[in-house]
Amino acid sequence: MAKNDGISMSVIRRLPRYYRFILELDEKGVERISSKKLAEIMNVTASQIRQDFNCFGGFGQQGYGYSIPFLKEEIRKLLGFDDFNDAIMIGFGNLGKAVSRHIDFNAMGFNLLGIFEKDESKIGMDVNGIKVSDQKDLPLFLENNKPTVAILCLPKASVGNVLPLLYESGIKNYWNFSHYDIARVYHDTIIENVHMQDSLMILSHRIKSKDNI
Amino acid sequence: MAKNDGISMSVIRRLPRYYRFILELDEKGVERISSKKLAEIMNVTASQIRQDFNCFGGFGQQGYGYSIPFLKEEIRKLLGFDDFNDAIMIGFGNLGKAVSRHIDFNAMGFNLLGIFEKDESKIGMDVNGIKVSDQKDLPLFLENNKPTVAILCLPKASVGNVLPLLYESGIKNYWNFSHYDIARVYHDTIIENVHMQDSLMILSHRIKSKDNI
Repeated sequence: MAKNDGISMSVIRRLPRYYRFILELDEKGVERISSKKLAEIMNVTASQIRQDFNCFGGFGQQGYGYSIPFLKEEIRKLLGFDDFNDAIMIGFGNLGKAVSRHIDFNAMGFNLLGIFEKDESKIGMDVNGIKVSDQKDLPLFLENNKPTVAILCLPKASVGNVLPLLYESGIKNYWNFSHYDIARVYHDTIIENVHMQDSLMILSHRIKSKDNI
Repeated sequence: MAKNDGISMSVIRRLPRYYRFILELDEKGVERISSKKLAEIMNVTASQIRQDFNCFGGFGQQGYGYSIPFLKEEIRKLLGFDDFNDAIMIGFGNLGKAVSRHIDFNAMGFNLLGIFEKDESKIGMDVNGIKVSDQKDLPLFLENNKPTVAILCLPKASVGNVLPLLYESGIKNYWNFSHYDIARVYHDTIIENVHMQDSLMILSHRIKSKDNI
């Protein structure tokens, strides 16, 4: 199954969290789980789980629960992990280092072709077999390679200098850690922005609200 | 105003994004903006903005729009930026480095008291005037200091070793970059988890869905 038809974006946005829990259960060798048990572990309601899983045909059997390998496979397909996307990373500061070393790109269907950085002291460093390249060589690289995704780990002020080159070489998909508003400049792009500090702001609010109770 | 009463969590979760745009306008010296113009910049509907801002008394005036300094101040209060929280960071690997150097804790009402790390090669490094301390010294530090927030930038497998110490010293608020499920162990905690790869999974899905259209 694993069609996207009829699955709302709010369900899709819950899939990564399901996937993390399902993967952990799979790694522990668990083969089946009831919606009740999964609800307990994930701290959501069992009816929410049943409703969400029904969307992609992950029907549990009364008394048997859900098959973990089936759920894992269906969520992988829905999230597109089986279709590989060639990606490049721009920026290898602390953030680029953290992202390149912490994220298992292959496991999520991304093939990291190269990392580009301006700071000479970082050029030549190795990340899982990929040598950090001089950003000056990016135009030549893009003539010979056709990545479809760019991961932007550079400051907002630097994005404007490199974005036109990326876009004009055909890159329309961005994982954006900068605060640069790509969508405002290029409308036919797919962008996921990561604003780490947003969740710190929410934490601040929740601490204050609790104080007020 | 800036009470939390009656403001739904879904509005609260949109505040960080509003705050980023409002701050940028404020820094540019913009004093007033219409919901229509702000909606354009933020790529949301004007009616959503009016509805959200009404929740906290940020009424715009017909023909005058919203006051940027007023909005900034009200959102700051709602997000609790005026109440300072003492925080410590555990883990100074690539992720800890990126977080400690990229996030302006003070601007969001957090006072970073210390950074703790096991790796001797990193102990003594300086981050905006804070020296990275040996994690061995954490128990003594917690006897003499009472931070209320811990920022966890260490691997999931290491969290279990340090979490009981943090919790028993009275830390109930966590900004958690590990995949350790704190809420499952301690129920009376406030936790914001950051799962960077979740948005990469959504990007993968969106790229695939577009391909299918």
